[in-house]
Amino acid sequence: MQSIVCSVQVKAAVPGLHDNTGDLDRLQQALINTLADGRPLTVPYSCMTSIARKFRAAGFVGSALLNNLDDAWVVVDFFADRPAVIPGMALDLGTTHLEATLLNFQNGETLAEGNLENAQIAFGADILSRIHHATTARRQEKQLDPEFHDPGLEELQHVIISTINELAEMLASRAGIEASSIRALSVSGNTTMAHLFLGLDPYHICREPYIPLFNRAPIIDAGQLKLTINPVSPVWIMPSVGSYFGGDLVSGILASGMAQSDKTTMLIDVGTNAEVVLGNNEWLIACAGAAGPALEGGVARMGMRAGPGAIEFVSINPDNYEMEYRTIGDAHPKGICGSGLIDLVASLYLTRMIDIRGKFRDPDSEQDPARAAFMKEHLSKRDDGFCFVVTGIQNSDSQDEVVLEQIDLDAMIRSKAAMYAILTTLINQVGLEFSDLEEITVAGAFGRHINSQHAMTLGMLPDLPLSTYRAIGNSSLRGAEKVLLDDTARRDCERIVSSITYLELNVNQEFMIRFSGARFIPHTDPSLFPSVPLFDMVAS
Amino acid sequence: MQSIVCSVQVKAAVPGLHDNTGDLDRLQQALINTLADGRPLTVPYSCMTSIARKFRAAGFVGSALLNNLDDAWVVVDFFADRPAVIPGMALDLGTTHLEATLLNFQNGETLAEGNLENAQIAFGADILSRIHHATTARRQEKQLDPEFHDPGLEELQHVIISTINELAEMLASRAGIEASSIRALSVSGNTTMAHLFLGLDPYHICREPYIPLFNRAPIIDAGQLKLTINPVSPVWIMPSVGSYFGGDLVSGILASGMAQSDKTTMLIDVGTNAEVVLGNNEWLIACAGAAGPALEGGVARMGMRAGPGAIEFVSINPDNYEMEYRTIGDAHPKGICGSGLIDLVASLYLTRMIDIRGKFRDPDSEQDPARAAFMKEHLSKRDDGFCFVVTGIQNSDSQDEVVLEQIDLDAMIRSKAAMYAILTTLINQVGLEFSDLEEITVAGAFGRHINSQHAMTLGMLPDLPLSTYRAIGNSSLRGAEKVLLDDTARRDCERIVSSITYLELNVNQEFMIRFSGARFIPHTDPSLFPSVPLFDMVAS
Repeated sequence: MQSIVCSVQVKAAVPGLHDNTGDLDRLQQALINTLADGRPLTVPYSCMTSIARKFRAAGFVGSALLNNLDDAWVVVDFFADRPAVIPGMALDLGTTHLEATLLNFQNGETLAEGNLENAQIAFGADILSRIHHATTARRQEKQLDPEFHDPGLEELQHVIISTINELAEMLASRAGIEASSIRALSVSGNTTMAHLFLGLDPYHICREPYIPLFNRAPIIDAGQLKLTINPVSPVWIMPSVGSYFGGDLVSGILASGMAQSDKTTMLIDVGTNAEVVLGNNEWLIACAGAAGPALEGGVARMGMRAGPGAIEFVSINPDNYEMEYRTIGDAHPKGICGSGLIDLVASLYLTRMIDIRGKFRDPDSEQDPARAAFMKEHLSKRDDGFCFVVTGIQNSDSQDEVVLEQIDLDAMIRSKAAMYAILTTLINQVGLEFSDLEEITVAGAFGRHINSQHAMTLGMLPDLPLSTYRAIGNSSLRGAEKVLLDDTARRDCERIVSSITYLELNVNQEFMIRFSGARFIPHTDPSLFPSVPLFDMVAS
Repeated sequence: MQSIVCSVQVKAAVPGLHDNTGDLDRLQQALINTLADGRPLTVPYSCMTSIARKFRAAGFVGSALLNNLDDAWVVVDFFADRPAVIPGMALDLGTTHLEATLLNFQNGETLAEGNLENAQIAFGADILSRIHHATTARRQEKQLDPEFHDPGLEELQHVIISTINELAEMLASRAGIEASSIRALSVSGNTTMAHLFLGLDPYHICREPYIPLFNRAPIIDAGQLKLTINPVSPVWIMPSVGSYFGGDLVSGILASGMAQSDKTTMLIDVGTNAEVVLGNNEWLIACAGAAGPALEGGVARMGMRAGPGAIEFVSINPDNYEMEYRTIGDAHPKGICGSGLIDLVASLYLTRMIDIRGKFRDPDSEQDPARAAFMKEHLSKRDDGFCFVVTGIQNSDSQDEVVLEQIDLDAMIRSKAAMYAILTTLINQVGLEFSDLEEITVAGAFGRHINSQHAMTLGMLPDLPLSTYRAIGNSSLRGAEKVLLDDTARRDCERIVSSITYLELNVNQEFMIRFSGARFIPHTDPSLFPSVPLFDMVAS
């Protein structure tokens, strides 16, 4: 296990009249003797002058900085003294957000963290609209010249590179270093984002048979991409499996450790899509489906991504109807994020304010006085039916409310049904049962914050001991960190990509049947969820 | 044996819904399967778009163009049909002249040849003055910043790159192609020229202990050097042994084939220096000395490089004193080049117009009437003694004469003495005799044109059967051609560099003694030259 950039201590013989080895040949020979792993070693042209001068000035002894590529060593700098900090940047290149970590290669410690919105959003919120923008000239001018670069694509690449440069500056500033001293970048993103990052034509990604221009990118020098980190930094891009199975998910599989384990485990990553992988160190099977939007701010009117002001936790006491909530950063509530939504809907079910179909019950038909009082306070009848007012009841200005409408509830039920249907279809595919799984890793902002018990109550996640669930946060970013620090992880990625089987749900009959069955709380077959309280079947 | 750029025919499966391999991954996998030599294969970032488009447009079948690097394959282009011509340029990067060949990788044939003066001459005629210019700021400002680039060095690099670009244009135009279609460049030059070509600091080359910044350069993309041939062309630079044993000589050794032979042979390359190598496939010993100037236009007033108007052949019939001469290009005579000089001095000796010390004899003391008449016609007494008028006797304008002065003769004798002393010192060093050599390869313009018999007459080359001598012309250029076409030749260069022993003549007592002994025609010990007629010892 070696990081993608290493410092190697080296001491060469001092030159003399009987030793006419060139300065750089001397350094390279000393390094080859030290590394002794048979890999070729080179000094890039752009570094020859400065490395030779520093090596000579240091008296032919010191610390060489090397890019540890898959099949070669590249000497990129030289220091008289071993540097205490060699920073590397891991990046989750999301369609909507970029999240990054600055690590120190000398000890693996985190130097800084940060995130920024993907400024490409100005050109389209989703992948398809970005591809559309990136291929405008190609489509309009029927451009087939192999050297042609679409201005729309160049624009999107420029914007994402600028955003990454801004994020690098932010992290560097937080760590008290210069961005130009960052020595490596690993990038984990979906297949389209990887294409846009490299300015490579994404035209065929969304056209049958959905073939990307590349799944595995070469390691590229940062300077070639106009990144403002050190120009000879290796940029390592997570390989993807195909157009709709990107490097971000490969990164998640890597981060979960499932492909290195002989135990069969499951990884659930909820982003815009729910992406689910099942397997072990011998096989991996994956599928994806649109289970996420309701949980990511994509559907609910008051929904938002986990961020300052997002209600991330809600609880309603079924005994006394006292409601608590907490926002991220304890900020003034602006909306509700995925974990808050699950808490809220589970609480509404457990306090019997919604029925098993996820429909608001009418406060007027409620018998229990305490519940009726709470319902009257929080359930507001508007033009398009009831909505639950989480906050802002006191305010005359309804702009300041955070509410959950029936339409949001419906979307939530569809999402949770899709999720459970995906999980059951996948586990059935390999002839296992949920109880065979020793661990389910839940990734994403979703995974970091949700109450697994509440997700089980809703019938979104299988009814298993809580200890089965393990949250790993942003698994795409965790994987990107891992490949920076460990070259065996890079080889693991190759193995993951080549061993994965993809299950297409859109044409899967079983999935559609399971989806219908899962559109109740917790399920049409409540025996699957023995730990969830069962109430009246359907309210009138 | 594979050339440094190869075209490889490839046919990949057509993508479909059940094969989501990316376009470039598909191409790379097909190539890896075809090449099957275990070397990693990559596509450089700058080529990804155009290769992917061409591959797809060609229906996933065609000819890939690959750079055949030492440890890797790099895919740089794709063609639907196998290209008939893939040009590569071999360059002898001389201090005064550049000479180049354009080859076709598809069949090894020569497409064009050409040469240009090294425009760096404007900054100094020799290596030392170039180094001086290249390190002006460094010396004056005591500049130690490792990132500092000396403007003088940048200027010299710019000039040499421009000259190479001009030469590439010339060759391309002669071959009826675009310079940008040239796909590789091999460069063979002395150590200083290699540094100036790459813009790398030559400061220590001429300072004890004479350590170059590099002996082995990496393979560099042409675009990084601002060369106007195809930007992803590999630029391969002949490795050098040390500051005063450059890649040009290594190239010559390669071209001679001596390092691949089990017979011991000798290579003599006369440029500004006489460089001599002795050895076989097990050992190589080399030395160099200032034997060349008299033969290269560096000393004789009328001396000039082999070029239009240079007298390259002279003959004086010892029976009837008829003189013939021939100029290069049959042009009006402007001077005399090395081969003409050797012919002339040998003829003057054989016709007894000079004595064994190389001094003009006085026509007035000549007994033979025919010889006396010829001497009176051609030996002109001037302020500084006799001189031999080769051409222009008829003209009143002495500007138009080509003459050989005593001072030129003296230089010639010193040069030939140095040459013979070098050869004998070297052969003695390994305990051999000249008669043990089956072949002596003579390289350089010198080697291409000289009359070996005349060189033996002067005692410059050992008295051996004429068939022992083989001329190979510009061996530096021949070696550069060889590495383009044959990758085993590149590895041979490594072996040559690592196996060579360098004999330092400046501190060699034996050389000085032998040099003194060789300052007669043919030698103080005429038994060494049994085939050369011996006349009176020393004229009074």
